[in-house]
Amino acid sequence: MKFYKKALLIAFLFVLVGCAKNNSTPQTQKVSDEGNVVVTNNSDNANDYKMILLDGKYPTSKTRGASLTLLTPVNIAEFEVGLTDLSKIQFPANQYYFLEGQYLPNQDIQKWLQVQNGENPDGLNKSNTPKAISTILEQDYMLLVDNGYELNGVSIGIALNPQVNDTLLSDNNLLELGKEAATKIVERIRTKEGMGNIPILIGLFKQSIDNGASRGSYLSYAVSKSGVSLSEWKPVNVEKRLFPLDNDKTDDVSVFSTFKKSVESFFPNLNGIVGEATFIDGTMSELNITVTTQFYGQSEMIALTQFLVEKANAYSASNLNVKIKVESVRGTEAVIHKKQGETVFHSVVLH
Amino acid sequence: MKFYKKALLIAFLFVLVGCAKNNSTPQTQKVSDEGNVVVTNNSDNANDYKMILLDGKYPTSKTRGASLTLLTPVNIAEFEVGLTDLSKIQFPANQYYFLEGQYLPNQDIQKWLQVQNGENPDGLNKSNTPKAISTILEQDYMLLVDNGYELNGVSIGIALNPQVNDTLLSDNNLLELGKEAATKIVERIRTKEGMGNIPILIGLFKQSIDNGASRGSYLSYAVSKSGVSLSEWKPVNVEKRLFPLDNDKTDDVSVFSTFKKSVESFFPNLNGIVGEATFIDGTMSELNITVTTQFYGQSEMIALTQFLVEKANAYSASNLNVKIKVESVRGTEAVIHKKQGETVFHSVVLH
Repeated sequence: MKFYKKALLIAFLFVLVGCAKNNSTPQTQKVSDEGNVVVTNNSDNANDYKMILLDGKYPTSKTRGASLTLLTPVNIAEFEVGLTDLSKIQFPANQYYFLEGQYLPNQDIQKWLQVQNGENPDGLNKSNTPKAISTILEQDYMLLVDNGYELNGVSIGIALNPQVNDTLLSDNNLLELGKEAATKIVERIRTKEGMGNIPILIGLFKQSIDNGASRGSYLSYAVSKSGVSLSEWKPVNVEKRLFPLDNDKTDDVSVFSTFKKSVESFFPNLNGIVGEATFIDGTMSELNITVTTQFYGQSEMIALTQFLVEKANAYSASNLNVKIKVESVRGTEAVIHKKQGETVFHSVVLH
Repeated sequence: MKFYKKALLIAFLFVLVGCAKNNSTPQTQKVSDEGNVVVTNNSDNANDYKMILLDGKYPTSKTRGASLTLLTPVNIAEFEVGLTDLSKIQFPANQYYFLEGQYLPNQDIQKWLQVQNGENPDGLNKSNTPKAISTILEQDYMLLVDNGYELNGVSIGIALNPQVNDTLLSDNNLLELGKEAATKIVERIRTKEGMGNIPILIGLFKQSIDNGASRGSYLSYAVSKSGVSLSEWKPVNVEKRLFPLDNDKTDDVSVFSTFKKSVESFFPNLNGIVGEATFIDGTMSELNITVTTQFYGQSEMIALTQFLVEKANAYSASNLNVKIKVESVRGTEAVIHKKQGETVFHSVVLH
């Protein structure tokens, strides 16, 4: 019940922005909408942002759908979640509230994603690499100031497509194009009302080009504290690895292989166990395992789930996020999971 | 780590049954297989049975596949889990271990499910209701005795099909057919080695006849402590209700409707929220909710999940099992769950 009460912290806000003259340059921008602001509760994971719900609605992103090339669902998820993760460096999740991008209009972004020419001077793409900059994502980070939620940070994700006109661009090519676009974007954001002096974080995301399960990842990020200058670009050392890999003999792979063999030896009807690990600066931080099984019976599903919970303790390092999905032709049958900081696995059999 | 150690209780057993003469009548039957017996750990839910893994394998049911009419997946799940739940009355989960049916051979069950006639005297079905008795399921319940797992209980589920030759059989018809079959099954089980004197529980399950989401349920059960007599048949008062129901004004429905409205008002992209509640003797014991949403973005999925966790506290009665699935065209996106006895919800966003 304590979650519930804490979460129903409702702040009634009045339109402050509307009172400002158009030609003035307010230093801050308040979330209002003449309605209620509600924030979600994140008690289940202290590492997650609380999210802002405006006027009885979840405020979807203004730039949603502004995409030149269709990202695969796993790319979309990684592009969004990766930007949120980078943002935690600059806008700590225990202080800031999350809001999907509300300030850059969709029609602006649509123009920015086109090729620059006489008709469209705002285009960020060049005629020889017309679709390299394929998506731009805005996320807003708010602080609770005087009972109002105030915009105090913006993160911009730039998704780069390494495959342009059937040629592959190198990471260096992509970084060069992305940094140039980032500089222009910061300049344009600074002219927007309420965004003249807030910190802006820019992340450069490299899409994965096959349409399979592999995900893209962020290559680099920089921050503009104020004005149009960007700080030094820092590399994002995030690596995704698929397990099992025969030619990989590291400890992580060996632990995974032991887990896989142990489960497979007791459950003859499994069709496969694969893992996707995320490494940050060389250290595994997340492991997502998918166990695919034929569906025979509910008792077997319960036994398999109990068994997976036991064996997952081999991965019980408390700094690791672990999700294990059991899949059959019916869809997801069971989930076993543990968040960073937890030592106990939770499990649920769905049907 | 404590789970792990406790779970790896491995008992090396020797073949005791094999030493007995064929014409003797042993009072007990030990699980062996000349190999290891491992049991799974159920620390995640004290109400679940620990399950027995034999000789490095999950021992699938011997009668698996012995089915006259194809049950829908939700019927299969309910038929199995319902029998396990009934068994807890007779074979408490904190004393007994679960093993899928190992004693009734598949070819016997196949004969039993046919119509009785000169060629097949063992058939349990009659010529005027040829497919009424459509599936028979065996579950074995073991006790740990002198470091060995000993068969000490058998549960038999009889699935009844209310639709025979395009006519519908009433519950009373089904019960009559089921009880007659149960008596014959108990007589036959008593002749099997090691099963002469153990308690046998028989449950009569009524299949749902549409192929949609609705599930069948158990109508009645009885126990044979020893010998061929069955105790009084007791009704199983389990009711499944789908929420929301406009013509249902009970408190449970009203709480669900409040939950549904509250979630729908904040998340404009939801395609529907439906619930399936299980009532035992008129009291809700389980609630499974499916939230169907279009997939837009990962941030919205995280916000929706956080919001659902908060709102789910309206159902925080500790005696209630709650599972909330968020589904999109991509499959299961997130799961929020709480077991009976727990007061805190766990949540996981899958992609």
